[in-house]
Amino acid sequence: MRAMNLLLLLPHEWPTGATQARLHLHDQRAEHLRNVLRANSGDTVRIGVLNGLIGTALIEQIDHQGIHLLATLDNNPPPPLPLTLLLALPRPKVLRRLLLHCTTLGIKQIHLINSYRVEKSYWQTPFLQPDQVQQQFLLGLEQARDTVLPQLHLHPRFKPFVEDVLPALAAGKRCLTAHPLPDSQPCPAGVQGETVLAIGPEGGFIPYEVEKLQACGFTTVQLGPRILKVETAVPALVSKLFL
Amino acid sequence: MRAMNLLLLLPHEWPTGATQARLHLHDQRAEHLRNVLRANSGDTVRIGVLNGLIGTALIEQIDHQGIHLLATLDNNPPPPLPLTLLLALPRPKVLRRLLLHCTTLGIKQIHLINSYRVEKSYWQTPFLQPDQVQQQFLLGLEQARDTVLPQLHLHPRFKPFVEDVLPALAAGKRCLTAHPLPDSQPCPAGVQGETVLAIGPEGGFIPYEVEKLQACGFTTVQLGPRILKVETAVPALVSKLFL
Repeated sequence: MRAMNLLLLLPHEWPTGATQARLHLHDQRAEHLRNVLRANSGDTVRIGVLNGLIGTALIEQIDHQGIHLLATLDNNPPPPLPLTLLLALPRPKVLRRLLLHCTTLGIKQIHLINSYRVEKSYWQTPFLQPDQVQQQFLLGLEQARDTVLPQLHLHPRFKPFVEDVLPALAAGKRCLTAHPLPDSQPCPAGVQGETVLAIGPEGGFIPYEVEKLQACGFTTVQLGPRILKVETAVPALVSKLFL
Repeated sequence: MRAMNLLLLLPHEWPTGATQARLHLHDQRAEHLRNVLRANSGDTVRIGVLNGLIGTALIEQIDHQGIHLLATLDNNPPPPLPLTLLLALPRPKVLRRLLLHCTTLGIKQIHLINSYRVEKSYWQTPFLQPDQVQQQFLLGLEQARDTVLPQLHLHPRFKPFVEDVLPALAAGKRCLTAHPLPDSQPCPAGVQGETVLAIGPEGGFIPYEVEKLQACGFTTVQLGPRILKVETAVPALVSKLFL
């Protein structure tokens, strides 16, 4: 389901340096505006350039040949969340949805990591192919009225990741492991500053993994007595922390 | 994907008034414990009775005939959220997942309502059949280690609902409409007391609907500049408000 709360342009579609431009679209975006959103001449739509500014566009003409727009870019996209998400690779269908949900939440750094309870076969899913990932990111940006593409990093081996990559990633940041056990601290609310949040697979990180993260400065946090699915935990944790 | 962080018993499976009992299970729950969770004799599992207490059970014997448990019920389930959720009926696949996610979050009162942007055909989905709804609720309780079944109420007509049903539902409670517009207030954090939260369809409530809710005492709230999908908005709003 495509929401397109923002009409997203690729950088080459926008004249370099211009703040206003006339555009002619005749691809599926034009079709979506005409057939799904039932836009008419004279309507205004929100517009943005990938990794660039946002603004509005007046529909000057719309017909079966496409759509003619007069567009102005005059605003920054919403600020990114100061968050680096470490997520144990979920099963493929959940992964696909989570890439979109993370994008709509404003997460810009997503590291998919291995964990004892991640099924090895998950690393072979076509949903990890760059074009499939990009598709979910673009849908998420259109949904959220954002333009800044998230970055996805894959770490199919846990130990090399926590020992060789994580120390530099985590340096100087608040580091939290979501771990729904009674001795975890309540997840803090409304935090400021750069944060790294690690979320385990269904069934959780195993003790060895929690300890390796602790050795990198991670404290365990929880959201209460109920165990959430990963798909619910991601927006719940991000919202409590930042929104 | 069944998590079964709690082995859920039906009330008739537990001897009335007992705090400890020996049980013999030989259905799919026994199979799940044996084949998926790979439980062994001597292991302890969490157990609960639907709409009743929770506790632990010692696996005394486990084999292809089933599983013999010595179970003790000694704790209350986690407290319910003081929340009544009004949710514009989402499309069927999202509905199915949301029923589960709402259950894991601890929501006990779910009202599915109509809205201008709800497709009429959604009301015909088999996922609204009581047995299908019950299945998602039970999976959610097993996931969340809860026992209290949520209640689902269907309101396929918006106006009669807000005029005839909502005033009594809303009386004396904090009433919020999630509405991602700049003039909405930031969603409050960590609130106390009974709250009614209305969440619109993809594309949002139309102005008429927002006004009808306002006439019942609802104020509009938002979580920031990004427009979330309903599936992301529900855990994000619930978490900010209550977790």
